[in-house]
Amino acid sequence: MPGPLDGTLILDLTHVLAGPYASMTLADLGARVIKVERPGTGDDTRSFPPFKGRESAYFAAINHGKESIALDLKSAGDRAIFERLLDRADILLENYRPGVMERLGYGWEALHARYPRLIYGAVSGFGHTGPEAERPAYDMVVQARGGVMSITGERDREPVRVGASIGDIVAGMFLAQGVLAALLVVQRGGAGQKIDISMLDSQLALLEHAIAITTVTGEPPRPSGARHPSITPFETFHAEDGLFVIAAGNDALFGKLCDALQLPLADDPRFATNPARCQNARLLKRLIESVTLDRPKAYWIDLLTRAGVPTGPIQNVAEVLEDPQINARNMVVDILGRDGAPAYVAAGNPIKMSALPDPVTRAPAPALDEDRAAILAWLEKS
Amino acid sequence: MPGPLDGTLILDLTHVLAGPYASMTLADLGARVIKVERPGTGDDTRSFPPFKGRESAYFAAINHGKESIALDLKSAGDRAIFERLLDRADILLENYRPGVMERLGYGWEALHARYPRLIYGAVSGFGHTGPEAERPAYDMVVQARGGVMSITGERDREPVRVGASIGDIVAGMFLAQGVLAALLVVQRGGAGQKIDISMLDSQLALLEHAIAITTVTGEPPRPSGARHPSITPFETFHAEDGLFVIAAGNDALFGKLCDALQLPLADDPRFATNPARCQNARLLKRLIESVTLDRPKAYWIDLLTRAGVPTGPIQNVAEVLEDPQINARNMVVDILGRDGAPAYVAAGNPIKMSALPDPVTRAPAPALDEDRAAILAWLEKS
Repeated sequence: MPGPLDGTLILDLTHVLAGPYASMTLADLGARVIKVERPGTGDDTRSFPPFKGRESAYFAAINHGKESIALDLKSAGDRAIFERLLDRADILLENYRPGVMERLGYGWEALHARYPRLIYGAVSGFGHTGPEAERPAYDMVVQARGGVMSITGERDREPVRVGASIGDIVAGMFLAQGVLAALLVVQRGGAGQKIDISMLDSQLALLEHAIAITTVTGEPPRPSGARHPSITPFETFHAEDGLFVIAAGNDALFGKLCDALQLPLADDPRFATNPARCQNARLLKRLIESVTLDRPKAYWIDLLTRAGVPTGPIQNVAEVLEDPQINARNMVVDILGRDGAPAYVAAGNPIKMSALPDPVTRAPAPALDEDRAAILAWLEKS
Repeated sequence: MPGPLDGTLILDLTHVLAGPYASMTLADLGARVIKVERPGTGDDTRSFPPFKGRESAYFAAINHGKESIALDLKSAGDRAIFERLLDRADILLENYRPGVMERLGYGWEALHARYPRLIYGAVSGFGHTGPEAERPAYDMVVQARGGVMSITGERDREPVRVGASIGDIVAGMFLAQGVLAALLVVQRGGAGQKIDISMLDSQLALLEHAIAITTVTGEPPRPSGARHPSITPFETFHAEDGLFVIAAGNDALFGKLCDALQLPLADDPRFATNPARCQNARLLKRLIESVTLDRPKAYWIDLLTRAGVPTGPIQNVAEVLEDPQINARNMVVDILGRDGAPAYVAAGNPIKMSALPDPVTRAPAPALDEDRAAILAWLEKS
């Protein structure tokens, strides 16, 4: 059962997270990824903690199943190898600062003239156009500048960073989408395209609700802690042994919640409608907790689930990795070590397709330059 | 200049956010989207605040440029219309609870037998397989259960929700990717596929770093406020007039930062390496703030930018919408009203492709059932 990208070759100059995340996604869809790394040190994340022995588990999580060749794109011999790879590649990915590829002689215009069907995918902090195209960025800079931090955190306290690197990852996801769209065009005989993804742009694409609020009311939303800004009750509640979540998104669900908790609030004018509940959210929280504090969270999650009210635990990552539903969906996979035994654990492929294999293991991540000889041999004979 | 999905027809049964987000992305790539809504009320988000007049700005932000037809899939007449649309559709999207489409007679197996090239894209809270497939979920439930909340918030305080609806949006993005991959297969003569996206699965796909830390150290990471858990300094700092961000991701950048702030710390053993800086992060923050508190954040952002240190403001959404770089990239677009004048503001398309138009406006979102007559006329003549 071949994947949708079977037979597709990606030449991947990207490092750290956004770009390698995109090529990982495309590899999960069947593409072959040749990772072109800087001689000597390779991808920066090879030296990122945590380590298992001398290998970075972080690097392995994003680069499993890729091949590695170290090329110095300023040396004539390595440039010749790189160009022979370009002859065969469908896609080139890079996440240098804008201008670096041009200085190497591999900018989009030059490559497009020579390889008209090649797709060129770039991801950078601020994009390849605009007054600040040249500036460097990290995840945290775009989370802060792009507005997501301003709506994340506790009410009336300082904003916090989203714990996951969504500045990088969401940009990598948009890059993968752009590459897939460009492949559709090339597959029907069209030309390759340049895809120019900005991490900052990508943060904006997460703000649908916040932009609507800001432009209609004139007031930008602020952090609202663990509650939804405009639905109530849709937040965390204390049980006897800790916090859990109730998300009663409409009046019918609120009625079911009141019945289940034996709280006669559904017809109370202070709580009968969602606007009224939002107005009296702090009082409602106390009233609900006056019931839920009496028993453990597992009791309430079970009771409310049977009543049809969306609810659930707040799981730490260790608990997530043991979650039966998540494991039933093959969302925790083993990355194999060089000895063929499981060495690391990583997230599985969230794109479940009826004709796409969903293996329970992943091939090892490559050592730096590990595949050089095999790649050169393949170039000779192909 | 046609888009990659020009000529592609999406029959879109989805409502609220995850599914409509996916069809919006595909519409931005050129697809025609016919939104099939429940007669009477239509998509729930038509009644979600904020409103402008009687229209929901939230609905408009996600459904601009789509066509609307209201169909009762339990009535014979409307089913006949729906099946004539299926004859012409390339893609069907739905986000009902698992089993609903089967009960309507439109489950994947039945549709695949009758329309073998049709792509069937589903997004649900927990996916169509596993012990909890039938359970309902909202964004907050999967943010909490999927682990992202457990690493977001202030240190030693309660976890917070990510202010953006990443439980829905990230799932919608994976659905769009799956559809694009399936289109590649159909375009080369292959069969349609079912794509089964789970909001909970999709949260896992954001946890690369946290999963690596948990499995290697045995300790799940906890919230670390506004700082990165394993890079220092990579966090917010107080200036005279408020907070800003410094992200010095390696020793070289830390050296530049020390020079720019005239702080002689680069060779201090407490701060010379990233592990040492992480160990002494609180002290380092105080030392940096002992300098930065003296002047406003704009001064420091300008100074550090010139020194090559990644830095930036924490912008609220009103500031984001005025950001020159964001506007130079056409990331703030106008949604037109029925009178042709700009009515709403929304995020632009983050997928910038060299042969994809990037219009500065979007067509209006449809009124419920607005396009019924035109769609029926089109069915007659095509």
